[in-house]
Amino acid sequence: MAELVGNVLVGQSGGPTAVINASVAGVVAEALNHSCIEEVYGSLNGVLGILNEDFIDLAAESQQTIRGLRVTPGAALGTCRHKLKKAQDFERVIAVFKAHNIRYFFYIGGNDSQDTADKIAQTARQQEYELRVIGIPKTIDNDLALTDHCPGYGSVAKFICTTIRELACDHEAMGQHDLVSIVEVMGRNAGWIAASASLAKRRDHPHDPPHLIYLPEVAFSAEKFVADVQRILKREKYCLIVVGEGLIDADGNYVSAAEATDAFGNAQLGGAADYLRTLAEQNLPGTKVRTVKLGITQRAAAHAGSKTDADEAFLAGQAAVKAAVNGETDKMITLMRGDGDNYTCETGLAPLADVANAVKKLPPEWVNEDGVSMNHQFLRYAQPLIQGETVVLHDSGLPIYAKLDKARVDKQLPAYEV
Amino acid sequence: MAELVGNVLVGQSGGPTAVINASVAGVVAEALNHSCIEEVYGSLNGVLGILNEDFIDLAAESQQTIRGLRVTPGAALGTCRHKLKKAQDFERVIAVFKAHNIRYFFYIGGNDSQDTADKIAQTARQQEYELRVIGIPKTIDNDLALTDHCPGYGSVAKFICTTIRELACDHEAMGQHDLVSIVEVMGRNAGWIAASASLAKRRDHPHDPPHLIYLPEVAFSAEKFVADVQRILKREKYCLIVVGEGLIDADGNYVSAAEATDAFGNAQLGGAADYLRTLAEQNLPGTKVRTVKLGITQRAAAHAGSKTDADEAFLAGQAAVKAAVNGETDKMITLMRGDGDNYTCETGLAPLADVANAVKKLPPEWVNEDGVSMNHQFLRYAQPLIQGETVVLHDSGLPIYAKLDKARVDKQLPAYEV
Repeated sequence: MAELVGNVLVGQSGGPTAVINASVAGVVAEALNHSCIEEVYGSLNGVLGILNEDFIDLAAESQQTIRGLRVTPGAALGTCRHKLKKAQDFERVIAVFKAHNIRYFFYIGGNDSQDTADKIAQTARQQEYELRVIGIPKTIDNDLALTDHCPGYGSVAKFICTTIRELACDHEAMGQHDLVSIVEVMGRNAGWIAASASLAKRRDHPHDPPHLIYLPEVAFSAEKFVADVQRILKREKYCLIVVGEGLIDADGNYVSAAEATDAFGNAQLGGAADYLRTLAEQNLPGTKVRTVKLGITQRAAAHAGSKTDADEAFLAGQAAVKAAVNGETDKMITLMRGDGDNYTCETGLAPLADVANAVKKLPPEWVNEDGVSMNHQFLRYAQPLIQGETVVLHDSGLPIYAKLDKARVDKQLPAYEV
Repeated sequence: MAELVGNVLVGQSGGPTAVINASVAGVVAEALNHSCIEEVYGSLNGVLGILNEDFIDLAAESQQTIRGLRVTPGAALGTCRHKLKKAQDFERVIAVFKAHNIRYFFYIGGNDSQDTADKIAQTARQQEYELRVIGIPKTIDNDLALTDHCPGYGSVAKFICTTIRELACDHEAMGQHDLVSIVEVMGRNAGWIAASASLAKRRDHPHDPPHLIYLPEVAFSAEKFVADVQRILKREKYCLIVVGEGLIDADGNYVSAAEATDAFGNAQLGGAADYLRTLAEQNLPGTKVRTVKLGITQRAAAHAGSKTDADEAFLAGQAAVKAAVNGETDKMITLMRGDGDNYTCETGLAPLADVANAVKKLPPEWVNEDGVSMNHQFLRYAQPLIQGETVVLHDSGLPIYAKLDKARVDKQLPAYEV
């Protein structure tokens, strides 16, 4: 295989996570090791930055900043939910890549983004432009196919479980009346996030909160919900419920009204907790219902991040560069768990086409028969992902997060109408 | 002054905080230093534990547990919102105190609780039962009179500001459309909590989020709100809003419907963020509005607690014991700030009667003329309170919080109907 000399471009796409910047740090750190890589550019706001030729020079950032990215939430390069549709868009991408001699393209994102990366790779091949495209997995939803788990998931799980443990301390103190406490978490199509709340239970304390977990994978029944809550309140002073935003009923309809759709046609959800609150208040007189809507705070909570997660996100960035330099293209980095009793994780590769637009559902056999709790198989799967605490530097009492200087790369082409 | 030999009783009341247990730890640690104190009891669920004679032996708890209380959220003894009403209730309290030779009573709570402590002290005096009663301030609301600030406030402020900084990282990444992000925080009667979000701005970055803060102290106007948001969206990619739950309009009505009242007649609020969301969606077409409702998580977030706050809560517990042993009674411990440029804090004493049922409002002159931001006087006041990071031990990836063994003290009296 002939060495491919040229520049790197890395972009971020879709919803930010606590560790998507750690993958950028991994790409930058690894790129410096390879003499075939000349420049390391970042695309601002994902593919939009490519169309608009909005590139920054990541090699010009300080080592301190790149290190800071390993624990900085958000997406330091900016992200987008823009979908490349027209053939013209893909031709523009290749034209921009040619103008900047981009030979290595790394796209960090979920399944929609891996689909975009796949199409860019195909277009390059059609145009006989030598380009290596490697996707880097990222999603708090943990729903990408062919990877054991996704960077971003462990940190959101750890934060939610931390919050559940703290809510438990608070609720246990207020033992004077029947309290129903509902925490709404993210998870549009899959219940991985809601399920992760089960890690908050201490080992051998099955009655610890969360007492009830409602997943998109289990058809929601209002009657069963009311009976579930009654059952818990007979046993416990309070009932702590975790609900995924994408809860659906037996007919497959979202129980909370869909309000809008994004550019990919995904329903923008919200209100599952309010829906359950109303159900409880109407059917369980005398109970007091409180809700928490973590919203975007859960995916940005780097201050309570999983070190395992941040380290694996960094590793995925490094692995993407190594794979591309070794001649791989049109693949996504996967995380592969070792077979031993002690958790180990190595990276692998999967074809982008196989990842694109697929969704990995929570295995139904990992949900207990009661439909509202997770069994030991899930716990064994998820427990290792929340291990270790990231260390965030503080100044004047608050976390300091890295900000890029964003030295702009000169544009080479006429403007393009997005 | 003759030495008063007898037992200590400590109780917790009202809403839990991240540091109310640190005050219990302070009482226990200090009580061990005084030979006039024989037993150290805790009352389960505040005054309810007194009426029901539900006491535990705090001296029987391990040193490790008492140390763990310094960073454990909730209220380890249990709390209550029960109001002693009948003269009979107060007589029962004194009867129980006599039966257990309680000579030192420490009550950790907000203004309602200090009022209760005051009445217990009065009843003891009327009955010529020698009792020393010292209140220990506690409230995330920071609205107790005569103390510079309240234990619990610094930690909730620190967590909210941490969250705002992280939301900012996330929102900056998503720069493609006009985003209005609304964070609802606690604060029933006073805007101290909402105001504290202003500490999230970096020094010399006045345009940092939060861009708009809506306080109960500033009469809410829907027209001004819409204009405020429009003004921010002209300048910024997104508008991050913090709103206190107790927002009121020019007529003094809560902008979000009051749904219920607690035992003290306080309105149980909620929905200020949803109210603002609807306003923004109806009046600013094309904007995308997201909400976060931190709910109880904010007052329980010991994992992101202020070391200054936790240390001062512990100090207040110690000071209460010292004051009582020195003959003080019917007082509340206050926190007094030094006059120097560098923040220092000592404890003082204020009559319970002066604290009871008073509310310390946010000084209007600390709010900027725009009505939606805080000036340097507020920042100078609040900045020291969030300094330092508490260290919470983790096991298997999650915080370990202390749980009391709760060795019960034998009851001495017939049951009492509460």
